[in-house]
Amino acid sequence: MKFTVSEIAQMLDGIIVGDEKVTISSAAKIEEGQPGCISFLANDKYEPYIYTTQSSAVIVNKDFVPKKELSATLIYVENAYTAFTILLEEYHKRLASIKRGVEQPSFQGEGSTLGEDVYLGAFSYIGKKCVVGDRVKIYPNAYLGDNVVVGDDSTIHPGVRIYDNTVIGKNCTVFANTVIGSDGFGFAPQSDGTYKTIPQLGNVILEDNVSIGANATIDCATMGSTIIRNGAKIDNLVQIAHNVEIGKNTVIAAQAGVSGSTRIGDNCVIAGQVGIVGHISVANKTKVGAQSGLSKSIKKEGLSFSGSPAKELNEHLRSMAFVKRLPEIDKRLSELEQRQEVGIIQQRD
Amino acid sequence: MKFTVSEIAQMLDGIIVGDEKVTISSAAKIEEGQPGCISFLANDKYEPYIYTTQSSAVIVNKDFVPKKELSATLIYVENAYTAFTILLEEYHKRLASIKRGVEQPSFQGEGSTLGEDVYLGAFSYIGKKCVVGDRVKIYPNAYLGDNVVVGDDSTIHPGVRIYDNTVIGKNCTVFANTVIGSDGFGFAPQSDGTYKTIPQLGNVILEDNVSIGANATIDCATMGSTIIRNGAKIDNLVQIAHNVEIGKNTVIAAQAGVSGSTRIGDNCVIAGQVGIVGHISVANKTKVGAQSGLSKSIKKEGLSFSGSPAKELNEHLRSMAFVKRLPEIDKRLSELEQRQEVGIIQQRD
Amino acid sequence: MKFTVSEIAQMLDGIIVGDEKVTISSAAKIEEGQPGCISFLANDKYEPYIYTTQSSAVIVNKDFVPKKELSATLIYVENAYTAFTILLEEYHKRLASIKRGVEQPSFQGEGSTLGEDVYLGAFSYIGKKCVVGDRVKIYPNAYLGDNVVVGDDSTIHPGVRIYDNTVIGKNCTVFANTVIGSDGFGFAPQSDGTYKTIPQLGNVILEDNVSIGANATIDCATMGSTIIRNGAKIDNLVQIAHNVEIGKNTVIAAQAGVSGSTRIGDNCVIAGQVGIVGHISVANKTKVGAQSGLSKSIKKEGLSFSGSPAKELNEHLRSMAFVKRLPEIDKRLSELEQRQEVGIIQQRD
Repeated sequence: MKFTVSEIAQMLDGIIVGDEKVTISSAAKIEEGQPGCISFLANDKYEPYIYTTQSSAVIVNKDFVPKKELSATLIYVENAYTAFTILLEEYHKRLASIKRGVEQPSFQGEGSTLGEDVYLGAFSYIGKKCVVGDRVKIYPNAYLGDNVVVGDDSTIHPGVRIYDNTVIGKNCTVFANTVIGSDGFGFAPQSDGTYKTIPQLGNVILEDNVSIGANATIDCATMGSTIIRNGAKIDNLVQIAHNVEIGKNTVIAAQAGVSGSTRIGDNCVIAGQVGIVGHISVANKTKVGAQSGLSKSIKKEGLSFSGSPAKELNEHLRSMAFVKRLPEIDKRLSELEQRQEVGIIQQRD
Repeated sequence: MKFTVSEIAQMLDGIIVGDEKVTISSAAKIEEGQPGCISFLANDKYEPYIYTTQSSAVIVNKDFVPKKELSATLIYVENAYTAFTILLEEYHKRLASIKRGVEQPSFQGEGSTLGEDVYLGAFSYIGKKCVVGDRVKIYPNAYLGDNVVVGDDSTIHPGVRIYDNTVIGKNCTVFANTVIGSDGFGFAPQSDGTYKTIPQLGNVILEDNVSIGANATIDCATMGSTIIRNGAKIDNLVQIAHNVEIGKNTVIAAQAGVSGSTRIGDNCVIAGQVGIVGHISVANKTKVGAQSGLSKSIKKEGLSFSGSPAKELNEHLRSMAFVKRLPEIDKRLSELEQRQEVGIIQQRD
Repeated sequence: MKFTVSEIAQMLDGIIVGDEKVTISSAAKIEEGQPGCISFLANDKYEPYIYTTQSSAVIVNKDFVPKKELSATLIYVENAYTAFTILLEEYHKRLASIKRGVEQPSFQGEGSTLGEDVYLGAFSYIGKKCVVGDRVKIYPNAYLGDNVVVGDDSTIHPGVRIYDNTVIGKNCTVFANTVIGSDGFGFAPQSDGTYKTIPQLGNVILEDNVSIGANATIDCATMGSTIIRNGAKIDNLVQIAHNVEIGKNTVIAAQAGVSGSTRIGDNCVIAGQVGIVGHISVANKTKVGAQSGLSKSIKKEGLSFSGSPAKELNEHLRSMAFVKRLPEIDKRLSELEQRQEVGIIQQRD
């Protein structure tokens, strides 16, 4: 997809200084620019690069005054960073909207319906009685089981596996090879040491505006639903066990795991590689530091936790500081012991 | 799939009180019931819900006496919880047995054989000389390399990748996008700092009744076999390295990892996000707590371990308790130092 | 694939003692040998097995003198271990070179080109304007987006997902179900508590001789490139975030994660389940122990780190040793307190 500087300036309500016919096909940081790229300059620190950049165009703040000659075409706007972001989003949106139509071979089970302007990639599989909304994109090699619902404007990336009865809201994104709705890990121990599989009959519900990264796993509920609430963002390789509920706008970073039946509140931030035990409840706006192990319910909102097992951040830092001081504590103890020996000897004398 | 209450009561050897023609299409917790659902009441704590539930039928213990009016049809049985579990299993079994036949397009390599009543989903790929047993289900987009054996009644979910020469026993389940038999991580360092790939020529063997979760990885052996013994249950996103052996009925929770050539005994329980180093041996019935790092062989059976590096549970808890008491230890030390200063001053006087 | 002992001896420049017409179809450890297998004996410790092995042939050092009768055919070479490795590599190479040609159905987008002797498996998908080099193997169910480049002799295993604009060098291997180039985890918090997606417009570059394990995830850059340098080896289930750079010949073991914009030097060794925070820089030849959490830049080359948060290895071990001594420290403190009580009492007397 290509734009002229003139088209971009119009989009951003900007003023052009330089060649307005230059064609832009990509974006780049100002220090890494190539011909055909557009960059932006918002921070004075990067100003030197504007005189040497190979980018064909640079978006600048309205008060920018060049101190040397430069070759790039300039687009003056109110706020260069905001304008650049708007441009990227617009570009991304137009790029995404190109995919449309049904590639062959693909598989559509009986009783399934597709909305308008859907993209269905080759080798994708849709089971029976699925409802696929308008402008949904299902990329190649993706799989939907039976009775799956995908809301309008959602995107299912290549190789995603969505099990029977899953409900996906509007404007959701599921990245490649993620698995939604496979069995929860439930086995009943038998007296002979073997395990009996507990049937997992529930489903998974993703509300609207949810994003799930690549190679993540979200298990179906034993009964009822595993629920990811509106606006939650989940990163790559994250594990969400059966009957978990993730609150609105909660963010979970890569390789973290949440065990069965735990309920995480709204607007929480769970860092990478965190583990959270089952059957607890975590208050809204809780923050959990990377690699922490959260083993107890959090009732008060807005606190930060760290460590394994996780403690409130201040307590954790204090505890870490004391561990660091252990050699010093040991030394003070030895000195005391020595002095006392001396004291005892002196008393004896 | 739908049943009448009458059919269900017959299945469970139960007695109906209420409308026996009501149709049941799903199961639900008593507090979340909807019309068309069946629930159970086993725990007195939940009794209030039976008077308000919207479930169409409720399985109850034979001694249950309603204290108020209720609308649901009741099925009286010896043990309500057990009966409910039997019902779910039966439902699950019948649901699973529906899938049968070969969907097109699918790919069958030369010399491969399919047993009776097999399901082969669209876009699934079977390499050369594979042997697929009776009633095996291979879901869409799954891949079997060459010379793969899958025993009777096993299920290979969508997107599973099974490399050449893998042997899967009877009644196994492999969930979506799991990879079995890819190369072990073996590289020989060279004098110039580069690495040379060590060919990984062995395979993976899953014995009978093994369950592997979604997005897990089980590497083939360098030579010989990586083995998962009878009845072992492995959760999502678990890593099993080359030449590892997992004992019978051992359970490994999500995101745990076992390094190369380690041998885990029978009936062990490995919790989530545990890491186990290579080339060690872990005794039967060992338990390892979440996020622990096991770095040494365990010789005595039946012990519990925790921490990173992992220690025996009691020792770990004791150590944690001492760390927690560090501020107090520091305070006592300061008091001693102060008193001694005073003591020395007093002696001087 | 089968060889006679005679062919093998010629390949290894070895001398045969025994039946040169024996056929070899597999390799095995000497203690696990089966008829039709070839094994090697390099370490005296294993000599007893040579008299009982069922392997049809054994490669031995030129100075090996049997002390008893044995049934296997022997191949005498300069160095038995090296010869065995060469044999395995040769076997592996020939095995790999068998796959060739385009299986149907597969999908090739407009403007894409395939090199010579390419293998394209059934249900594999190649987007538009891709460039696939000579002798490249793309296994079944793999996906390449648009504008993807795959260099000569690289292998893309089943179910791998490669997003638009990814560049893969020569002689690279990407194992099953790994995802390369999906969106970095970038969301801008809004004043109402929701998050706005930051478009991720960059790509991923794998230089030559890179190996990526199964079910790993490598995110594309926000702008610019996420880069994996020449000869780097990355294991299963590893997470590499946006704009990360991994240095030449650096090795990263299973389930480790590297956060956004971090730069890891050359020849580093990152053990399993390690977490590395974003926006730091790690010097060449750094080693990080299993489960460690690296939270600060490392400037000096060649050091080892361990713990969470990670400290230099010696400091970490010292700290661990002090924690272990805490019960003893507590006891000494109690003794001192007791003696001082006594001392004070004595002074009073």
